[in-house]
Parts: sequence; structure tokens; C-alpha cells
Amino acid sequence: MSVANSRPPKTAMLLAQQIVADINRRGNRVGDRLPPERLMLEEYNVGRGTLRESLRFLELQGVIRLRPGPGGGPVVQQPDSTALATSLTLLLQFENAPFRTIAESRVGLEPIMARLAAERMSEEQLADLKASVDTMKLHLGDQRVFLEENKRFHDVIAHGSGNAMFGYLVDALLDILDGSAIGIDYPEVRREAVQEAHAQIYEAIAARDPLAATEAMSDHIDQYMRYAERKFPDVLDEPITWAH
Amino acid sequence: MSVANSRPPKTAMLLAQQIVADINRRGNRVGDRLPPERLMLEEYNVGRGTLRESLRFLELQGVIRLRPGPGGGPVVQQPDSTALATSLTLLLQFENAPFRTIAESRVGLEPIMARLAAERMSEEQLADLKASVDTMKLHLGDQRVFLEENKRFHDVIAHGSGNAMFGYLVDALLDILDGSAIGIDYPEVRREAVQEAHAQIYEAIAARDPLAATEAMSDHIDQYMRYAERKFPDVLDEPITWAH
Repeated sequence: MSVANSRPPKTAMLLAQQIVADINRRGNRVGDRLPPERLMLEEYNVGRGTLRESLRFLELQGVIRLRPGPGGGPVVQQPDSTALATSLTLLLQFENAPFRTIAESRVGLEPIMARLAAERMSEEQLADLKASVDTMKLHLGDQRVFLEENKRFHDVIAHGSGNAMFGYLVDALLDILDGSAIGIDYPEVRREAVQEAHAQIYEAIAARDPLAATEAMSDHIDQYMRYAERKFPDVLDEPITWAH
Repeated sequence: MSVANSRPPKTAMLLAQQIVADINRRGNRVGDRLPPERLMLEEYNVGRGTLRESLRFLELQGVIRLRPGPGGGPVVQQPDSTALATSLTLLLQFENAPFRTIAESRVGLEPIMARLAAERMSEEQLADLKASVDTMKLHLGDQRVFLEENKRFHDVIAHGSGNAMFGYLVDALLDILDGSAIGIDYPEVRREAVQEAHAQIYEAIAARDPLAATEAMSDHIDQYMRYAERKFPDVLDEPITWAH
């Protein structure tokens, strides 16, 4: 078939690496336009098909955005965790891994991040965390707000860990769980317990107490896991799939 | 430019999801051939450009391999951590994250994996781990063998954790460190210390003692971090880049 007969993807990947290296070398920032196609074809001395494939790849990675229309072209963009979540999901799907895999990895990761966050979180991030705890408390009756604030709380801590790997990884894991709509339900009594746990974790982080933050987060996430195992074992057994 | 004027990548991604869902539904295994292009175009009712883009994307994710030539076409493949490492590297590069980020995340992750491995590792994986410890001891004078066994040791533990997310994540982190050739050097006295630490971790895992395994791994990885910070701070400060 024609796809198989075209040049190997390796060329396009090497070109993509070169384009990223040049973005770096030029000190390009988010929003900067890259050179037009005509110039790129000359500069990199490649065919149109290869260039197109490289740019598409970088677009899928979230590193550029391709603006349509005349005068359009590639614009540098801040990547988010979407591509990471896709790669992880495909790997887990091919291993027939259940959703328990994601939940369990959060049991391992969240306490570490709470510890680092207690040591490093900025005052601004701390204010964000407090706002999340307060908003959740104010809207305990509203499941939608609850789920949003639940996600935001763990997200702020992940990025507050000062380790970008943990930050994006947790974004990706929360994306996979979210996208799944696997439906772990939170009745109001559970929501209250979660809100209280969040308040306790916040206090430990605000007090810059890494040990207390680790323990409060461990308790919280262990409780979540026990709750999910007791009430929704079938959900945790569901295989992870990319296509919902 | 023409790339920007073509259909949005979203169509190709939705098609890629559909193709993966169908691989799943049919129960395809690694090595199975997917339908030829002609049939796929009909079945999915898409244009050749969209199909081509989807298949390329799945190839870059390592989910299929495109065999060239007549009678060629897409073949189902077992994905590895390459695409995951690429996505992570790009995210970290855009954050100007230093190599310390990777080292630090291993400080957090390795003890958890050692604990899970002590609980779950199969006898076969345990034999692999023992073989790695023994091989390293026999070839302490050979830096190449040392580095290989060092990687293998941590890899076996990551996959022995029984959590596929941790397994692939560590593969990706080791890939990023490896690909960097950032050159953290191991003189013979360090190699001996590493070998002894590996032997101790192995003993704890073989004894199915999660606590001892966690502690032995914590000590080992903290020591590595302290050594790297003392001897190679500039290396840890180097920004992570995809293109080396």
C-alpha cells in the first residue's frame, strides 16, 4: 500500500527534532510564528511530504499549532499532557491493564508530591490550593463543582511539587480517569470526607510540614482506594481503552 | 501553507481511535495483519490522506508497523516506551526542566516500585534480577556491562511492580537519561557500592519483605542522587532536550 511505500517515518522524526532544536536555538516563545513552508523546505532540504509529516507530528504533540488560511502556518504552542495521556493509554491498553493501574499509581505518587509541595509550593499556588478547599466546602451539594475542585486540588499539588515530570504525569493520569467516565460516584457523605481530607492536607502543606503532608495525603488516597475497591470493584477491573 | 489548509488532525485521531478499537474488538494479536488500504478506505469511509495520517500516527506510537512493498501493509505491533519518552521529553524541554527532574522523580518512584515488586514479582522475574546482580559482580571492571546491568536491574523491578504504568514510565525515564549521554561517570569504587546495594535490594525482594525492599532502594537511590549532586552538579543542571 502507498503508505508503506513512502519514505520511512524516521526522516520525519529527525526533521521534527531539528525543528524543535531550532525553536530552542532561536529562543522562540509561545505564539511565535515559524518560517513559512517555502523557507523550511529550502532550509532543511527535504520534500514537502516529509515536512508536512513532521509538522503534523509536532502538532499532535501540542508543540505547534497549524493556523489555516493564507498567511497561516505553524505557530509555537505550549504543549499540555494530551499526547502523554495518549501514549500512556495505548501502552496500558495493549497490556490489558485495568483502571486499577491508574488508581494504584496515584496511591504511590500523591504522597511524594505532597511532600515536595510542602517544601516548594509558591505562595500563589498555596492560595490556589486554599481556594479549591474553600470552593469545595461552599458547594458540597453540587457534584459537578465537587469533581472539578477535586481535580484542581490534586493538580495544584502535582505542579506545586516543583517537578515538571510529576506535574504532567498526574495531569495525564487525571485525564485518563476523567475521559473514561468510569463513574466512581461520590454521595454527599463521601464528598464531605474528601473535603475534610483536603483541608487537612492543605494545612500540612501551608505549615511547610513535609511529613504531615505525606501522611495526610497517604491517608486520603488510601481511603479513596478502599472506597473504590469496596463499592466499585467492577469499575476498577475495566480495561483501559483509548477509544471510549 | 498547504499543511495548514488540509483537514484538521482531529479526523485522523478519531480514525486512529476507531482502528485501535477495532484491533481490540477483533482480538488481534501482535503480528496480525490489518485489512489492506482498499478495504479500510471503504470500511471507515474516509479519504486516503486521513487514513495515511492515522496509520502514520499509530506507527509513531509503536502500535502498528507498516511493511513496505507489494502485499505489505499495517501489522499489529507491541508498543514500547519510545513514544512515551518523546512526549515526556518535549513537555520537559518546553518547561526548561533540567536533568535533575528525571533523577528526582526516580528518587520518588523507585522505592514504591521496590515495595510492590517484593509483594508481586514472579519467580521468573526474581531469577532475572538475580542474574543481573551476579553479572554485574562478575564484570565490575567493564563499564559497558555495568551500565547495561544497572539499567536492567531497575527495569526488572519496575515491571516486577505489577503496575504497567510504573513499568513503562521507568523505561521512558531510563531512555531519556540514556539517550542524553549526559555522562555521569562511575569509577570502580562507585560501581562496587552500586553492586552491593543491588545485592541488598535483591535479598529484600527475594525475602518478600516490602519494608526492607523500600528502605534498601531508598538508600540506594538517595546515595546515587547525593553522588551525582556532589560530582556532577552541572550535568544535573543541563536542560533536557529531545534533539541531542
